[in-house]
Amino acid sequence: MSGRFITFEGGEGSGKSTQIKLLSEYLKAKNKTVVLTREPGGTPVGQELRRLLVTGAADKFDATAEALLYYADRRIHLQQKIWPALAEGAWVLSDRFADSTMAYQAYGHNNRVTPQMLNELYRLVAGDFRPDLTLIFDLNPEIGLKRSLARAAVETVKEVRFENIDIEFHHRLRRGFLEIAGQDPERCVVLNADQPIDKLHQDVIKVVTERLKI
Amino acid sequence: MSGRFITFEGGEGSGKSTQIKLLSEYLKAKNKTVVLTREPGGTPVGQELRRLLVTGAADKFDATAEALLYYADRRIHLQQKIWPALAEGAWVLSDRFADSTMAYQAYGHNNRVTPQMLNELYRLVAGDFRPDLTLIFDLNPEIGLKRSLARAAVETVKEVRFENIDIEFHHRLRRGFLEIAGQDPERCVVLNADQPIDKLHQDVIKVVTERLKI
Repeated sequence: MSGRFITFEGGEGSGKSTQIKLLSEYLKAKNKTVVLTREPGGTPVGQELRRLLVTGAADKFDATAEALLYYADRRIHLQQKIWPALAEGAWVLSDRFADSTMAYQAYGHNNRVTPQMLNELYRLVAGDFRPDLTLIFDLNPEIGLKRSLARAAVETVKEVRFENIDIEFHHRLRRGFLEIAGQDPERCVVLNADQPIDKLHQDVIKVVTERLKI
Repeated sequence: MSGRFITFEGGEGSGKSTQIKLLSEYLKAKNKTVVLTREPGGTPVGQELRRLLVTGAADKFDATAEALLYYADRRIHLQQKIWPALAEGAWVLSDRFADSTMAYQAYGHNNRVTPQMLNELYRLVAGDFRPDLTLIFDLNPEIGLKRSLARAAVETVKEVRFENIDIEFHHRLRRGFLEIAGQDPERCVVLNADQPIDKLHQDVIKVVTERLKI
């Protein structure tokens, strides 16, 4: 595979979605083919799964069912979109990937699904494949949730299933992302997401330029 | 758990759905509380998964994604419907359960998902829980598919994703169910489904009466 795969990870309201668009524009200006995608819901079938996963009551199904649905979505996403794009040399940027499942399920939900089982599911769907680079947008969840809920109120977005979970969940989530980054420093870089958009974008460009050849 | 859990398994057009209704009526006449259910789609969330799984092109996603979706549906089904009903003493009759996933994925799809992985998924969602009795409706697939397609034409049913797969698939499926039964004779009974409805119903009653206390 001649392309590059970069994943954007972090809690609610951490600015991932804004930063992924800015990096995409930057790479296109450098004449790269860019595929912008996200999880859950990077494919047409995945869109239906996304609707199941991010709408409705927080307890509509348990963490085990949730993990299986995320990994089904991931398999379809890899097979139908990510791998074909990389094979054609594209830079694939994904808003969330496997680290989100680990952080939410194993850390946020206090090991209701174990890291071991999530790693087994990962191997089942992805084998040895890994992102070339993972950017982790780190932010105090009190700030992130305020941002996220304000946006939902303005856009009348219905995807607030995760925002309705208690604040301790989001603190565990943050610790999860930081531990994941600590365990895999070759792949992961933690960025301070409590900065103005432009400054954070400059940090992103710096890391991408240093780690991957543009 | 004081109830009884009976699963109905077999290929397309094997008469499972008719027989499950007849057994339900028989048990109700014996003053049993009966819960009739099915997979995929035994719960409201499962209905949405069922729509994903049984409609559309045969190649809309691969066997790995399919197995994950079936097990997500199964987890939700167990947690929200089967286990609560058994705890209240009901007889739960399910049109398909885990043996179908094994037969379709590992046998029909030629080990594109291994039995080992399916067994791991089973443990993840169900632990040590097993059906008290599994009835396997065995039939030459040439006959079963003819029945099934005739019914689909009459009812203009759109759930023909599996019927569109080649006949060899269905022969492997049949062998799969027979091997599963052979490996677990304490739980599974194979019934000859190439019989008139009433005669097959008598076979079902005989097995249920012998194996489980009514």
